[in-house]
Amino acid sequence: MKSIEWKGDCLSLLDQRKLPQKEVYHQYTKIEDVWQAIKQLQVRGAPAIAIAGVYGLLLGLNHLTKSDKSNFLKKLEEAASYLETSRPTAVNLFIALKRMRQFAHNTTCSSTKDLYQQLEKEARIIEEEEYQSCEKIGKSGLSLITQGCSVLTHCNAGALAVGKWGTALAPLYLAKQKNISFKVYADETRPLLQGARLTAWELLQAEIDCTVICDNMAASLMAEGKIDLIITGADRVALNGDTANKIGTLGLAVLAHHFKVPFYIACPRTTIDPQAKSGKDIPIEERGAEEVRSFGDFQAAPDNCPVYNPAFDVTPASLISGFITEEGIIRPHK
Amino acid sequence: MKSIEWKGDCLSLLDQRKLPQKEVYHQYTKIEDVWQAIKQLQVRGAPAIAIAGVYGLLLGLNHLTKSDKSNFLKKLEEAASYLETSRPTAVNLFIALKRMRQFAHNTTCSSTKDLYQQLEKEARIIEEEEYQSCEKIGKSGLSLITQGCSVLTHCNAGALAVGKWGTALAPLYLAKQKNISFKVYADETRPLLQGARLTAWELLQAEIDCTVICDNMAASLMAEGKIDLIITGADRVALNGDTANKIGTLGLAVLAHHFKVPFYIACPRTTIDPQAKSGKDIPIEERGAEEVRSFGDFQAAPDNCPVYNPAFDVTPASLISGFITEEGIIRPHK
Repeated sequence: MKSIEWKGDCLSLLDQRKLPQKEVYHQYTKIEDVWQAIKQLQVRGAPAIAIAGVYGLLLGLNHLTKSDKSNFLKKLEEAASYLETSRPTAVNLFIALKRMRQFAHNTTCSSTKDLYQQLEKEARIIEEEEYQSCEKIGKSGLSLITQGCSVLTHCNAGALAVGKWGTALAPLYLAKQKNISFKVYADETRPLLQGARLTAWELLQAEIDCTVICDNMAASLMAEGKIDLIITGADRVALNGDTANKIGTLGLAVLAHHFKVPFYIACPRTTIDPQAKSGKDIPIEERGAEEVRSFGDFQAAPDNCPVYNPAFDVTPASLISGFITEEGIIRPHK
Repeated sequence: MKSIEWKGDCLSLLDQRKLPQKEVYHQYTKIEDVWQAIKQLQVRGAPAIAIAGVYGLLLGLNHLTKSDKSNFLKKLEEAASYLETSRPTAVNLFIALKRMRQFAHNTTCSSTKDLYQQLEKEARIIEEEEYQSCEKIGKSGLSLITQGCSVLTHCNAGALAVGKWGTALAPLYLAKQKNISFKVYADETRPLLQGARLTAWELLQAEIDCTVICDNMAASLMAEGKIDLIITGADRVALNGDTANKIGTLGLAVLAHHFKVPFYIACPRTTIDPQAKSGKDIPIEERGAEEVRSFGDFQAAPDNCPVYNPAFDVTPASLISGFITEEGIIRPHK
């Protein structure tokens, strides 16, 4: 399964909205299509959005290789700014686009075409680095996955979110390789059910023991002593360790604190936002009411019913046992 | 709206599974149909189940009015035992059926027909007492609903759960009558969405300001200081104050404790189980995987995916600020 694949002239994306019923791949040739794909969550997960974003940038530039360099750079700025408007919370996209911008400005090139080709190479490096990060995160977190343990995760920070092992699920994939036996509980993760649809789907494909629960069942499992460890991903980490992740993460962290269950965030360095001193500096995307009111064709709440639908929440560093990163597990100051 | 109505020869039940899309009433003439209606959650909410149960009992006996008394009493025992197998957690059903049994055994009657008629009268008294309880609970809780406050509730412990004002929602209906302005957040309450489908529906009908959230968004609202008070119902309260209620209640109580939000349980005396010393004595119903895997025709988790689906959880008394009852607000010993 390759959920994101750059094919030189187009970007192939697995449509995650259609999983687990259908495995549909779209081939996008326009930057606008990639913007829509990010906005509409065909591609999701902080690192995956960044990878899709840099290739989306190439799609916004590949018809300009005969243009002069200053026009090309101007269009690059416009294209990057446009892509940044797709989703506000995950920082990886912003950082990756900034890197592409800086690379373009700092690179000596023989022609615009040469610059484009170098940018394409840089995009592939960004993608490869994300994958390498996953492996390193897997190694960093491996010691937490002990024989017979039960791990709870929220949303999807797995292969589908990154393209390799993911972040939160990376230690699990590695533990599976090492024949450690363990059990995973996946929060279904309302409203868009990334846990039930995506995490369960990819873990079952990897033959990892996975049980889906509704988000509101986690407390009950913890009270019964059935959860040894929680690992989630992150969409943006502030310098003080406050972490924005899928809505519901904060609640889990509070429960974990109450029931004395270790609570870890797995994320690559690119998820840390040097501009955000604390969680207060992280903008939280609010999404449409229909995501909550309905499931596919099934209408839950009354049509005219007001809905509050923040896509993320911020977990204070004080509730986080550690960050599983490429460089090992970092413990926040408490 | 009368969600439960005894019509002498049949029981009319509003099919709560079909709300808010359709307002469908079934007229049941057989005890087996009432058993199914309880099992399948056409009627739900602890007091409503008890009311439906005692009328279901009458439907199991109304063809026996010419039978001799000992046979009638034997059949009554069988019918009551049968109804008790419909759902295990809410205690009100058990207590109401026990009351009907004891009434039948202790009543002097001129004939079996006379006994049946007296039982029918007793059933109506049980129903009326539940409604009076709601009003009293409303009065007991009214002082908690202050001008401009925001109240979070979980599942549905409103008119649909009882037939009058409900329990958790009773103080809100009374506050509305008194022109107190307040805001309600309704947890959608997975897996069966009683909050989104039922609480939102009945509060909007009553023109009460109600916003639906996913269960996992409550922590975020509390962290932002947007919740002043939480009130839920209860399915069974143990003698030490431990309370079984819809899955997700425990999580809310832990969050409320963490964020210092008062957390109240509203329930009539009939919800207290004198047989249960603590939460450990309360059986928790586990329901089928399909409730979690899908919504109507919309499939969320993969077909073969294991699911854990407890219908209730137990909140320890230590996390409960008070019980709003007919006799006022009772504070648990801490």
